Amino acid sequence: MAARASTNIPPSLRAIWNSLEMTTTKAIVCHDTHANGGWKLEEVTVREPGEGELLVEMVATGVCHTDVLIGGIPGGAAPIAFYPRVLGHEGSGYVRKVGAGVTVAKEGDPVLLSFAFCNDCIVCKDGQPAHCGEFTPLNFGGPFNVFGKKEGGEADIGGVFFGQSSFANLSVVKECSVVNVKDTVTTKEDLQLFAPLGCGIQTGSGTVINAAQATEKDDIVIMGLGGVGLSAIMGAKIQGCKTIIGVDRVASRLTLAQELGATHIIDGSKLGDKSLGDAIKDLTGGNGPSITIDTTGVPALIKQGVEFTRNKGKIIQVGSPPFDFKLDLDLFSFMVTGKQFMGAVEGHSFPPVYVPKMIQWYREGRFPIDKLTKLMPLADYDKALAEMHDGTTIKPILTF
Amino acid sequence: MAARASTNIPPSLRAIWNSLEMTTTKAIVCHDTHANGGWKLEEVTVREPGEGELLVEMVATGVCHTDVLIGGIPGGAAPIAFYPRVLGHEGSGYVRKVGAGVTVAKEGDPVLLSFAFCNDCIVCKDGQPAHCGEFTPLNFGGPFNVFGKKEGGEADIGGVFFGQSSFANLSVVKECSVVNVKDTVTTKEDLQLFAPLGCGIQTGSGTVINAAQATEKDDIVIMGLGGVGLSAIMGAKIQGCKTIIGVDRVASRLTLAQELGATHIIDGSKLGDKSLGDAIKDLTGGNGPSITIDTTGVPALIKQGVEFTRNKGKIIQVGSPPFDFKLDLDLFSFMVTGKQFMGAVEGHSFPPVYVPKMIQWYREGRFPIDKLTKLMPLADYDKALAEMHDGTTIKPILTF
Repeated sequence: MAARASTNIPPSLRAIWNSLEMTTTKAIVCHDTHANGGWKLEEVTVREPGEGELLVEMVATGVCHTDVLIGGIPGGAAPIAFYPRVLGHEGSGYVRKVGAGVTVAKEGDPVLLSFAFCNDCIVCKDGQPAHCGEFTPLNFGGPFNVFGKKEGGEADIGGVFFGQSSFANLSVVKECSVVNVKDTVTTKEDLQLFAPLGCGIQTGSGTVINAAQATEKDDIVIMGLGGVGLSAIMGAKIQGCKTIIGVDRVASRLTLAQELGATHIIDGSKLGDKSLGDAIKDLTGGNGPSITIDTTGVPALIKQGVEFTRNKGKIIQVGSPPFDFKLDLDLFSFMVTGKQFMGAVEGHSFPPVYVPKMIQWYREGRFPIDKLTKLMPLADYDKALAEMHDGTTIKPILTF
Repeated sequence: MAARASTNIPPSLRAIWNSLEMTTTKAIVCHDTHANGGWKLEEVTVREPGEGELLVEMVATGVCHTDVLIGGIPGGAAPIAFYPRVLGHEGSGYVRKVGAGVTVAKEGDPVLLSFAFCNDCIVCKDGQPAHCGEFTPLNFGGPFNVFGKKEGGEADIGGVFFGQSSFANLSVVKECSVVNVKDTVTTKEDLQLFAPLGCGIQTGSGTVINAAQATEKDDIVIMGLGGVGLSAIMGAKIQGCKTIIGVDRVASRLTLAQELGATHIIDGSKLGDKSLGDAIKDLTGGNGPSITIDTTGVPALIKQGVEFTRNKGKIIQVGSPPFDFKLDLDLFSFMVTGKQFMGAVEGHSFPPVYVPKMIQWYREGRFPIDKLTKLMPLADYDKALAEMHDGTTIKPILTF
């Protein structure tokens, strides 16, 4: 952990110290919000991997709305959002060094990266690391400085975002975040395409498959058809859900939802006088869905979802609502309906088990993630964000 | 449906009509709230069973807080609470007549009675009648007049409360509410003891077994140890839950909870400066429970339960909260925890399957409902309510 201890090094020896212990790499460093022009592609130093860490050379990283959210708060929101920091949490690459005690992978192994978890709390021990008691500090917290300015000085740039900070070509990664794919992924091209499996795609499909445990008897509504929502559509198709209704306001996303398995689509911008709930009831024999998944975080949609879901149905919150939003449940009525309301992070997935499943489904032609993705060079991150925002691209993958 | 059509009968023939079509019986008729002295034991007429109905001669009826709640609203609360009406929804007895189309039982069969459901909506068809889309009108609605004044006139006293109105010695019962126990219950004494299986005991134990699907890995907290809460304790014991914590403020109930299987008890009146959540965390290795069941309906307890339940845990609302209470979920935090919040009515039970299971457990000595019950004559209903209220009796059973 040279960089963190470097205040003890005499200034006269600092240059030598840095050359011995530091490697330089390029990274998107967030110094401020993207809107303020605060995301910059820079040369930085990266420290050695410590105990339980690996140095990974990324070949690709997906871009997710959580990166935009956390790197888009003016002034930050300590302790989960701060600057400067290297974001990115859908990385893939090859292991270049392993720290002490690491057993998950060896130098040279191809890896896909996912979220961090403590592996020690009762929830992790129960095989549910996505709801680890330490999830927030381990994935959003810090600073956990890993990177430093190329010209030397403190390693004062935050790393291990979601255990990985994959917006850097070389990055220090926590062992818990690593899914070793040496037995299933043999080409760099596949490793790049699979980069987003560890977050957005896992979140969407896992919510349907692991959290909702949807079956062919279910009528499912998915609100919001970004990367997570469209992955949920693919998950519903794999589960054979009877009715799969996608809701969005962007025509191209709705069309793609149909290609991926939606049996019905609703363009929220074209409802006219009809309520969304009535439109959905019309498509479900008057019953409403048995499963409703909200990926939008929009309070008005969430409230409608709670209402239009049928009795005994499940409502699953996946999209981040405004931090200060409170959902008022009219408790007596809610109780009588027997509905379930739950949150789901990362699709309740255990990545070492679930990521290989998604790869297998892709190879069988049942999980066409390539319809969602678009590869572009790391330097084009501004363009990637713009295309995510306007719906041109569902899931940009930045390549190194 | 003679009584409902009796306005068409010429006054000169009404006495003959009544003697032909009506039977007299005794019933507790609610003319006003119990607190106002409005519950009266009276002779009334009862009409013939119509299509899909049976005339049952009750041998017993449990008394449940829902009777007290619905028969305790000054002026009523139409359409679910009104006067005059015969309440009671934990009945048992023998079939005396069957209406057209009835197949569930024959004259003479012993039956246990449970809630009503439509058997036609998608939720019923999915085997979940406790959350039937028509649950409220079918169980609470009306007036569905069944009973009349002994001296003649309209049958203007409401019946078929929960499909049964078991506070009458002879009552018209909906077929859906009937569990035929001719193969398992041979004595009148057992039939009396089993009367409350169809509501309170099913609700408590079924919430743990059917709704929470608790296992031996679970740490469970049950708030409120009336008939429902203590039945939940028995359910948790049957499931072999690792930790079973009962919470109440009445010493005798806490002692009984221990007899029934609680591994720990918390007297809410003796917490001092400690919060309930901290007391529960102390008993669950700092983790909080994996399942929390609230049978109290007390808003402050419900809010605490949402907090102290561990990540990925289930919070199940069973007790009726105030009708106007809104539960504010801090949605972002709730989502990240992965907790599930759900309501459960009647323990998600399908009575024809679940009631016989409870009988079997009782016979095996694993479900000692006799520790909760106290038999007393119908005329002692005032005493029954007083003893329920002060905790002397958990589950009074009025006998005919």
